[in-house]
Amino acid sequence: MIKVGIVGGTGYTGVELLRLLANHSGVSVEVITSRSEEGVRIDDMYPNLRGHYDLQFTVPDVEALSECEAVFFATPHGVAMKMAPELVERGVKVIDLGADFRIKDLELWSQWYGMEHTSPELAAKAVYGLPEVNREAIKGAQMLACPGCYPTATQLGFLPLIENKLIDHRRLIADVKSGVSGAGRGANIGSLLCESSESMKAYAVAGHRHLPEIKQGLSEAAGRPVGLTFVPHLTPMIRGIHATLYGKLKDPTDGLQELFEARYADEPFVDVMPAGSHPETRSVKGANICRISVFRPQNDDTVVVLSAIDNLVKGAAGQAIQNMNIMFGLDEAEGLKHAGMMP
Amino acid sequence: MIKVGIVGGTGYTGVELLRLLANHSGVSVEVITSRSEEGVRIDDMYPNLRGHYDLQFTVPDVEALSECEAVFFATPHGVAMKMAPELVERGVKVIDLGADFRIKDLELWSQWYGMEHTSPELAAKAVYGLPEVNREAIKGAQMLACPGCYPTATQLGFLPLIENKLIDHRRLIADVKSGVSGAGRGANIGSLLCESSESMKAYAVAGHRHLPEIKQGLSEAAGRPVGLTFVPHLTPMIRGIHATLYGKLKDPTDGLQELFEARYADEPFVDVMPAGSHPETRSVKGANICRISVFRPQNDDTVVVLSAIDNLVKGAAGQAIQNMNIMFGLDEAEGLKHAGMMP
Amino acid sequence: MIKVGIVGGTGYTGVELLRLLANHSGVSVEVITSRSEEGVRIDDMYPNLRGHYDLQFTVPDVEALSECEAVFFATPHGVAMKMAPELVERGVKVIDLGADFRIKDLELWSQWYGMEHTSPELAAKAVYGLPEVNREAIKGAQMLACPGCYPTATQLGFLPLIENKLIDHRRLIADVKSGVSGAGRGANIGSLLCESSESMKAYAVAGHRHLPEIKQGLSEAAGRPVGLTFVPHLTPMIRGIHATLYGKLKDPTDGLQELFEARYADEPFVDVMPAGSHPETRSVKGANICRISVFRPQNDDTVVVLSAIDNLVKGAAGQAIQNMNIMFGLDEAEGLKHAGMMP
Amino acid sequence: MIKVGIVGGTGYTGVELLRLLANHSGVSVEVITSRSEEGVRIDDMYPNLRGHYDLQFTVPDVEALSECEAVFFATPHGVAMKMAPELVERGVKVIDLGADFRIKDLELWSQWYGMEHTSPELAAKAVYGLPEVNREAIKGAQMLACPGCYPTATQLGFLPLIENKLIDHRRLIADVKSGVSGAGRGANIGSLLCESSESMKAYAVAGHRHLPEIKQGLSEAAGRPVGLTFVPHLTPMIRGIHATLYGKLKDPTDGLQELFEARYADEPFVDVMPAGSHPETRSVKGANICRISVFRPQNDDTVVVLSAIDNLVKGAAGQAIQNMNIMFGLDEAEGLKHAGMMP
Repeated sequence: MIKVGIVGGTGYTGVELLRLLANHSGVSVEVITSRSEEGVRIDDMYPNLRGHYDLQFTVPDVEALSECEAVFFATPHGVAMKMAPELVERGVKVIDLGADFRIKDLELWSQWYGMEHTSPELAAKAVYGLPEVNREAIKGAQMLACPGCYPTATQLGFLPLIENKLIDHRRLIADVKSGVSGAGRGANIGSLLCESSESMKAYAVAGHRHLPEIKQGLSEAAGRPVGLTFVPHLTPMIRGIHATLYGKLKDPTDGLQELFEARYADEPFVDVMPAGSHPETRSVKGANICRISVFRPQNDDTVVVLSAIDNLVKGAAGQAIQNMNIMFGLDEAEGLKHAGMMP
Repeated sequence: MIKVGIVGGTGYTGVELLRLLANHSGVSVEVITSRSEEGVRIDDMYPNLRGHYDLQFTVPDVEALSECEAVFFATPHGVAMKMAPELVERGVKVIDLGADFRIKDLELWSQWYGMEHTSPELAAKAVYGLPEVNREAIKGAQMLACPGCYPTATQLGFLPLIENKLIDHRRLIADVKSGVSGAGRGANIGSLLCESSESMKAYAVAGHRHLPEIKQGLSEAAGRPVGLTFVPHLTPMIRGIHATLYGKLKDPTDGLQELFEARYADEPFVDVMPAGSHPETRSVKGANICRISVFRPQNDDTVVVLSAIDNLVKGAAGQAIQNMNIMFGLDEAEGLKHAGMMP
Repeated sequence: MIKVGIVGGTGYTGVELLRLLANHSGVSVEVITSRSEEGVRIDDMYPNLRGHYDLQFTVPDVEALSECEAVFFATPHGVAMKMAPELVERGVKVIDLGADFRIKDLELWSQWYGMEHTSPELAAKAVYGLPEVNREAIKGAQMLACPGCYPTATQLGFLPLIENKLIDHRRLIADVKSGVSGAGRGANIGSLLCESSESMKAYAVAGHRHLPEIKQGLSEAAGRPVGLTFVPHLTPMIRGIHATLYGKLKDPTDGLQELFEARYADEPFVDVMPAGSHPETRSVKGANICRISVFRPQNDDTVVVLSAIDNLVKGAAGQAIQNMNIMFGLDEAEGLKHAGMMP
Repeated sequence: MIKVGIVGGTGYTGVELLRLLANHSGVSVEVITSRSEEGVRIDDMYPNLRGHYDLQFTVPDVEALSECEAVFFATPHGVAMKMAPELVERGVKVIDLGADFRIKDLELWSQWYGMEHTSPELAAKAVYGLPEVNREAIKGAQMLACPGCYPTATQLGFLPLIENKLIDHRRLIADVKSGVSGAGRGANIGSLLCESSESMKAYAVAGHRHLPEIKQGLSEAAGRPVGLTFVPHLTPMIRGIHATLYGKLKDPTDGLQELFEARYADEPFVDVMPAGSHPETRSVKGANICRISVFRPQNDDTVVVLSAIDNLVKGAAGQAIQNMNIMFGLDEAEGLKHAGMMP
């Protein structure tokens, strides 16, 4: 059994890690930390876990964490970059669900995240954990940066088009809708049921932190800098991201369906749906899967890709476990084989 | 008091007409029809109206309806075009909330609606009831075609840019999110709470009936045919439409905020929000208002317009009453002065 | 125009007062206070009010408030009891939507609210603002205590049975379900959409602050102390209270329907529904009405009363305005005549 | 691998069986039937199952079903009683999730279900599948009647009190709240999102079909006929039942917490929560567990029990699989070990 630790276990990605790891045959969660909830049983905070764990939150402590073989950071940005270097040095494999190691250009990172990066050396070595792009590098990673939720849905949808240079890389549009859990478990007025249910809104249209991350990934795939307009929206549901992606085809193109199917044929967690399908986020609720469909409306030169994930699973905790499985040479799907929950 | 009739009063636009007209000082609802609910009191079907009306549904009857000065059709397409001609001939002003008289090109209409149009002469005279474009024509209309909900939100958002030829008219993108009431009160499995809550999906990406209507309006404003990709989405809420509109600026343009403010300065039911605002659909819930904001993210050449309405009010019943007020020379805002409901 | 002030206008009862008063023909809101939001325009905080008010939040100030003829307190308990005495002394009529003046037994008040009452003299003079019980006293009130939301729904449901001594007054059960807005606009984790949607729970089963208030009202009606088990529940919706009330009939009783109809025949804001109806909270959404129905299942000796209100309207702001109308000799229904919003 | 068939697989209990059985190590679903969807792939109807099954709906056929060792009926009442006798005769173990075999008094059954029972002999042999009461009988059952969702939550909550004769058995009150999935996947207007979200209502107060089932179970536990008032409510969520149960203690009683803990100490799927807890339905979402807590408010003689289940799991498909595990001598928890989904 691989000994696992979780730093910052009180948020939604933390409890989702716990929910998923409870069904993983190869790991044992040994440590879970939270400064504010020290001494609280995790199942007092999350009663869905009653009977599954006998664990309390402890104060983060490098000694205790370095007894683990893998440590997940489910923390706001700025935390992992402080603790990860020592853990990695001691041989622990670190998997960061936060934003500290996603962006390679640390000046850019500083602009968007408003602080200096304190761990540039480790950032240079970190592997971006999108298995559908980086599987080989992930196998050998010591420091793994899990993609954000918006970037996962958006990149997986655009990749087949970008990699094959089928669309104008300067004019990508990503109109993406997220459930409220994407905003985390913080006590923000905007996330209250009375503020966010029975309503829809865009936010951060002028600029969102996931923009540089998506551009970085798509630019790598394109082999040159892409131009992207990214508009995130808050949707009145708990879980789910639905990306609606628009690109301008360079030439009239048939065979987009086959192209997408071929691109993801061997991917266990990307499902290209039959032509004409519209993926619903509820079909991926609780499951580590991205469902995609592709359209060319009116046979015109605009291609529309629909891409749906559960932001807490394929967009966070599930993808983190998928990465862990790859890093430790386990079955990539271990702990992630269950179906989504409909209704 | 203007005598008013409503044909097809059992659906959501019908009950919303009743709710709003109950507060209108200048009209009296005399007739309301429904084949299926003949003899049922309207407040048995809609208990929110208890104490406000003493009316029963009757079978549609031209004699009874022609006693009215105005008749609203809140019916599926194909109904109004059969009954309206005789009513108009008898001097009744007809306001159709359905789709029969929206599209001028009746061949196009037939393609999208799958039937022959039986009233081409009246269709030729019908006025498209978007007051922000057509107010003068509406004043003299006998046959008024209310815009669809998606077309209202989309056109009001694009108009200032299109009319001023600021964006490439061939590459418009409208990514629009609707609450479930847009699908009507029919007993469809897809509209069940268990199917449509906690989920988000696009639908009809290959082609939706509101596409030709939006293109017609925007093409008129542009003075030439526009190209439009329109993707509607089903959002887990009862009411609300949020349009996110994308255009490519021909030239670097400042002053978009002022342009929008000037365009709608005298419009009682379009609210251009302060720069940087993100309109929420809940801010227009129950109210006859369209809130708009405009962005140029990263100062790039893509312009993003956000446009929010209540699909049942400014997108249907409220706009119909606004049109009626104009047609009868009343205060345009009568019956429509209340604020939206937050929370 | 009656000059009105509102203390504590940032919460949900505050904005609801503003929404409703915007349609009231006889008042003008002159002052609205909030310590934390001083200088902020109310329509920046609540965009639904854009175009309806030109007001900013100011710091609470007795001088400014005493220019008003009526002052509403939409504040947590402990605020009104400090400011109200001076306002009343200066001739202002004070209407408290909070809990400071609801309970006559101030020792009991202190037990449940955890502080000393600082204004016992005014508390003694305060009138409990349930018009269906206290209309005459309300007419002359200088200090008006608006009932809580749970107490309004529960008392209106039980009153006909209690006043007529039909049920065992020692064994009342009130199982009451509230929307999340009842918890206010505070940034509490429990009120997040992700915590409170797609879930149902009871809370405060061991004791809730509305228990002594309900017991006080029902004991007065009974002429002796009643015994009550009161279990509040958090329901995944924004607005609405549904009380399900259980009593044991002393004797087999027919005519309960008629009894209820007679009791409320002259009440403008209580609607006894036809026998066999089940009131839905959505039928009262946004409206100042309590809908009630009464059952005797299986013709047994248990009577079940169903009572539905909008907690922010008949349970708070609407009832406060109804009380104001009575206090100032206006039409009791002024500003409150609109129908609820379905769907 | 045990070969399993499902009759009536298109409803919510059918798809939930499929979701759960996909993770069961000991069964293989061989046949799934639906008259209306013959030939449709189950993952076209339920895309969450894509990748988990390669199955199509077939017309119900006794020959094909009798190749299975276990057949689940996820059908409306009246179906299982026609097909089950022949299957049982051929040695198939039948597990009915519907209502045909729950009630022992077939006259009573006919009154409530409005039809004659066509299989009285098998009904006499059928075992009521509440493992916490009937485990030994279930082990040998050929014909298993799964309890309804309301009866499961209500009986598990009342049993410790009833079995120990602590409360007045003549005056039980069950105020129970259900998510909309309890109404099934039928295209009923009342189950539309626009009709059932943002609202709460009671229904069937005069009498609900689960009343006689609950009374039967509790009367057996009490050793004499109980009196019960049962009021079901429709709650705006997909999944979940929350029962709030009221009883009158015969004597002042301490130790209720210990009593409940002892009663369910060995039960894998009943979780008595710590004293003072309030179970939320979301803590059991997707999981086969009933969480219970018990209160004596104000130390008075009314006992309040809170009981929460997922109506589709412990209230239907999960309990059916639990019963199957017992009937086939498997680990009772196989396929049911996963945690609920929060948030």
